[in-house]
Amino acid sequence: MSKRTDVNELGEFGLIDHLTQNINLQHASSLKGIGDDAAVLEYGNKMLVVSTDTLVEGIHFDLIYSPLKHLGYKAVVVNVSDIYAMNAIPKQITVSLAFSNRFSVEALEELYKGIEAACNFYNIDLVGGDTTSSQKGLFISITAIGEGEKDKITYRNGAKEGDILCVTGDLGAAYLGLQILEREKQIYLSNPGIQPDLGTNKYVIGRQLKPEARKDMIENFIPKANFTPTSMIDISDGLASELFHICKQSNVGAILEENGVPIRSDVQEIAINFKLDPITCALSGGEDYELLFTISPNDLEKVKYMPDVYICGEIVNVSEGIKLHTKGGNIHPLKAQGWVHFGN
Amino acid sequence: MSKRTDVNELGEFGLIDHLTQNINLQHASSLKGIGDDAAVLEYGNKMLVVSTDTLVEGIHFDLIYSPLKHLGYKAVVVNVSDIYAMNAIPKQITVSLAFSNRFSVEALEELYKGIEAACNFYNIDLVGGDTTSSQKGLFISITAIGEGEKDKITYRNGAKEGDILCVTGDLGAAYLGLQILEREKQIYLSNPGIQPDLGTNKYVIGRQLKPEARKDMIENFIPKANFTPTSMIDISDGLASELFHICKQSNVGAILEENGVPIRSDVQEIAINFKLDPITCALSGGEDYELLFTISPNDLEKVKYMPDVYICGEIVNVSEGIKLHTKGGNIHPLKAQGWVHFGN
Repeated sequence: MSKRTDVNELGEFGLIDHLTQNINLQHASSLKGIGDDAAVLEYGNKMLVVSTDTLVEGIHFDLIYSPLKHLGYKAVVVNVSDIYAMNAIPKQITVSLAFSNRFSVEALEELYKGIEAACNFYNIDLVGGDTTSSQKGLFISITAIGEGEKDKITYRNGAKEGDILCVTGDLGAAYLGLQILEREKQIYLSNPGIQPDLGTNKYVIGRQLKPEARKDMIENFIPKANFTPTSMIDISDGLASELFHICKQSNVGAILEENGVPIRSDVQEIAINFKLDPITCALSGGEDYELLFTISPNDLEKVKYMPDVYICGEIVNVSEGIKLHTKGGNIHPLKAQGWVHFGN
Repeated sequence: MSKRTDVNELGEFGLIDHLTQNINLQHASSLKGIGDDAAVLEYGNKMLVVSTDTLVEGIHFDLIYSPLKHLGYKAVVVNVSDIYAMNAIPKQITVSLAFSNRFSVEALEELYKGIEAACNFYNIDLVGGDTTSSQKGLFISITAIGEGEKDKITYRNGAKEGDILCVTGDLGAAYLGLQILEREKQIYLSNPGIQPDLGTNKYVIGRQLKPEARKDMIENFIPKANFTPTSMIDISDGLASELFHICKQSNVGAILEENGVPIRSDVQEIAINFKLDPITCALSGGEDYELLFTISPNDLEKVKYMPDVYICGEIVNVSEGIKLHTKGGNIHPLKAQGWVHFGN
């Protein structure tokens, strides 16, 4: 091959777009293909939602500080989170593992204990998969299958001008958990005698090592409040990046209110100790596995008093772009992966 | 962890059995979980069949002699073959890739060209997946989803005493193709100036690098002949190993007729040149992606004149074990992964 283009020139999403540009869906059952949290298939009177995610050692996790049981749990969570983000309920998973010969049966048992614990908590069946060797490292590829109702499935592309932007839970903690784990790893590597000091940081470390998907929102709160979001996505890469996905696919703009972005006060404190701006951790940190969704203004009353849901902005015309309204009253363009240094 | 058990003590199938021994299926839609070619889910009036398989660089393929386009094609084929082995028709796939930074956009385009070619040939939709980095090597994990009819889905556990054992196509060629590619690789590595001599071995090399699944059997010949196999499996690990799976899960024995095992004469010749017994290549070689199935004796007339189907034995009582009836008239126990040296 004469030309060599580095994949970093395109980025992950650009690469997928590029590689799959010729793909056309042939089957009536394939309702939605690449480009959302999950594919949507129509089988009988059910909508089937399918999502795949892979965790790779050295890229997505570090076994120095990720216990295998937690890792198995998290590998399931990141997949069921994609199913929930379609407003569907996960039912089955398949698990593909590739691992080098440094992994013992006991180590794999630990990993499976975590996978089983997540299957129990999220009420899903582990129905298949395969195990194989790798030359180096551990790969966990999980495919999750969920069920939804045709008129309730929520895509990324349904946000309309005037819709209200909502987010669940709190943001930024998983990213700060990772910073602490990386710091303690460096201390440990330079002096293995020192025990890591994780005491006051339990919450953020837990958010990094054992995140949860918003089962409660999709299986309980949203159906009880009796509305369907107009668009939805889970927050795996950071609020800013997810908002860009919704705006791009819905062909709309947005104004995000810094005031509305939920960040716990203890998390803000940890950010400041790291000399990081808390809002930047929330916007660009990722791995929170919360839900970002839009609702019709008609549904505002239904959402206002829901537990753990925060109103954080508004959908506007595409010509207005995607902007952040800061606590200080300034409005400036939001950057998808941008990094605002502390003190700005 | 105090104890360290090497995974090789259990083997791949033993390891899966061990890790998943506590798994119980909760959902009414999960009809069949781990232990067959694919999981079976009931959605509406359709039976959904789901299978996952991963190809790992350095374990399942060597990029020195596997063109990326062929590799993409093969990665799809090994998965749709599992769907066909359930007597179901593949409809959708998701593709997860992990690759190191030595892979360029152009290299991944080649891989996707192969994936797309297979999707076109097998009439399946690529509906999703993800791409991620790896520290080393290329990983391709594909999940295939197919559709079947409830009374036609064929499991591994349905073989009955008196059933007739059938196999499609011809066996042993893919394994010999691999031997030739490995030999030419060694020659090339010791003297890169020498061009590989693959001329007379095109068939076996094609079987290794670009295998096909038996779409024709499942979508055409078997429905036309109007019967349903009592059990079925695809031949990925070798005829002997697959027959063991059927017998174990059906709780039966079998007598395999060496005379009935289809091996092309040119393939036999190549085996002999490698000082290998052709029947051993067929029994233990693997990667043929043919179908091994059993039929009720009542369906014998329907199968007898089907193209490319060979009758190769009989299902017997479990007490009789699993035996090979050699061309020489001897009957001896079949070994699942055994290797009979040439000349035995």
